[in-house]
Amino acid sequence: MSPLPSELAYVPFVSVEHMMGLVHHIGIEKVLTDLAAEIEADFRRWPLFDKTPRVASHSAVGVIELMPTSDGQTYGFKYVNGHPKNTAEGLQTVTAFGLLADVDTGYPKLLSEMTLLTALRTAATSAMAAKHLAPKSARTMAMIGNGAQSEFQCLAFKAVCGIDTVRLYDIDPAATEKCARNLAQSGLNVVKCRSGQEAIEGVQIITTCTADKQYATILTDNMVGAGVHINAIGGDCPGKTELHRDILMRSSIFVEYPPQTRIEGEIQQLDSEHPVTELWQVITGQAQGRSDDRQITLFDSVGFAIEDFSALRYVARAIKGTPFFTRLDMIADPDDPRDLFGMFQRAEPEAAVA
Amino acid sequence: MSPLPSELAYVPFVSVEHMMGLVHHIGIEKVLTDLAAEIEADFRRWPLFDKTPRVASHSAVGVIELMPTSDGQTYGFKYVNGHPKNTAEGLQTVTAFGLLADVDTGYPKLLSEMTLLTALRTAATSAMAAKHLAPKSARTMAMIGNGAQSEFQCLAFKAVCGIDTVRLYDIDPAATEKCARNLAQSGLNVVKCRSGQEAIEGVQIITTCTADKQYATILTDNMVGAGVHINAIGGDCPGKTELHRDILMRSSIFVEYPPQTRIEGEIQQLDSEHPVTELWQVITGQAQGRSDDRQITLFDSVGFAIEDFSALRYVARAIKGTPFFTRLDMIADPDDPRDLFGMFQRAEPEAAVA
Repeated sequence: MSPLPSELAYVPFVSVEHMMGLVHHIGIEKVLTDLAAEIEADFRRWPLFDKTPRVASHSAVGVIELMPTSDGQTYGFKYVNGHPKNTAEGLQTVTAFGLLADVDTGYPKLLSEMTLLTALRTAATSAMAAKHLAPKSARTMAMIGNGAQSEFQCLAFKAVCGIDTVRLYDIDPAATEKCARNLAQSGLNVVKCRSGQEAIEGVQIITTCTADKQYATILTDNMVGAGVHINAIGGDCPGKTELHRDILMRSSIFVEYPPQTRIEGEIQQLDSEHPVTELWQVITGQAQGRSDDRQITLFDSVGFAIEDFSALRYVARAIKGTPFFTRLDMIADPDDPRDLFGMFQRAEPEAAVA
Repeated sequence: MSPLPSELAYVPFVSVEHMMGLVHHIGIEKVLTDLAAEIEADFRRWPLFDKTPRVASHSAVGVIELMPTSDGQTYGFKYVNGHPKNTAEGLQTVTAFGLLADVDTGYPKLLSEMTLLTALRTAATSAMAAKHLAPKSARTMAMIGNGAQSEFQCLAFKAVCGIDTVRLYDIDPAATEKCARNLAQSGLNVVKCRSGQEAIEGVQIITTCTADKQYATILTDNMVGAGVHINAIGGDCPGKTELHRDILMRSSIFVEYPPQTRIEGEIQQLDSEHPVTELWQVITGQAQGRSDDRQITLFDSVGFAIEDFSALRYVARAIKGTPFFTRLDMIADPDDPRDLFGMFQRAEPEAAVA
């Protein structure tokens, strides 16, 4: 028998299996609503956060990024990769995990899968932004791009914004079939469309989430009518956009963190001085959101570290008293901090018998 | 029953308990020798690595850092904190964990504790540097600062450089007692000293590893005789040094990565143009190491991401076929990468029964 690590040595760990269990336990629409509230609360105290650009390691086939932030009490970071070619090999384009730590001691306090959690927080962020920017009467949304993120978006807009109808379109009809099948029991009215043009007929919100790493034009200018809210989440790295530049020129553009969005978002197509509004300023009332019925609002979302931070903190609280985590012996915690070697020595199998 | 994650979803995890077991299983001196060889091999291909400065989040009481690197095939990073005030609260000053991932897919392939592993790799790096810089005849080492790192240093210098005698000194005699007790069965001749002056009498190598976050002068100029090798590992952040500036002026200084050492190492006391030699260039024969018997050589070590990378890769290989790891369900890996939601949906407890 080896000496047992102290309580401090254990870090709660939420596996993919546990995350799925937790979300089913709470109910996915409640999770999305809770996450939207949690993220909104952190956007309200936006200036307080450490905002570092992500730390990227690029290769010919993809990127691995670390996204750290801190609110002065809690530190968090996410590991996330982006490998568009993975799908063809039967792998996820994006996988992720995240960590929270105590700023005061530097000790980790949560390790969690974040592939599923990122999908949830992305959808919750989109819906939270739309709550502030979309027409209040919006009930129908076009969902263009029916990949891994699409169902989460549809459910978040149902739960947070009261959307009752989604109009699906993907260049691959099999993706649309999959999305429609997955939403069959959701309570949403699901309409499968055969073109982007058909999908946006009569909608008040257009969500685009396509994954090609190239300058694409999922939407052209003449497709977009007055008064809609566009939620553009597929453009999220240099060289990857979804909207025609002319749409951007007609829109009021809202972003998370301008230094990052200028590089990664739809606005990489525009002059670096083109005016944009920071979403947190709309939420706190420091900037105007939607000002009239004919305005096109665009949330050019690329995902920001604070959203992951909010999501991890939510999970850290939500798992308490549930069976949806294990505890990892991740941190050496000797009785005497100077005696790391003694802790190692006493763990020797024969030594413990003596 | 929920669907089982695929093989790809699992990431090998080495806990503190497992790391201690693995090191006892292999033998600590062999681990230190192997690590020194592994790190030396990576120093030989130094120009090939991505070398990013560490990403630090500072607070009033400490720092949390991410240290990433990549050799183009494998990506690695370490999470590490530094909280000098932790010791007084019964916590470790430094805790750490690390990750390796496949650059081609972005999928993690090892998660490991690194509190113990960092102690091992730091000692292995010091001994590897001394093998290239210290007098070949060195058999006696002064070990000044008898905290958590001290025993690892002594054993690494025994295993890699053939040191047979260590002379211990710490301002706290209890730390010296602890270190001497832990080394009692090591085969080293251990001498407890009551001053730094006494500790360095007749030694060929001086290792300093003290932890105060302040400009300290553990060694003053008149203490250091000709021909010694100084292994200074305690100075590792801005404002924290151990050696009097005059010693630096008399020494040939060798460092890991100048842009980092200029900020964190002993040489922060010197002009930013003061000449230093990169250790990897000595190892590859591109620069001279020790050139004469009376020269004072100084390895001003602050720890670099590549050393962690080497250590993690060693562990990834060493655990194969052993019981010293578990597998974490950390990465969502749906059969159809576009169907993350379907994977979630099928994990619903009631759905699985149907």
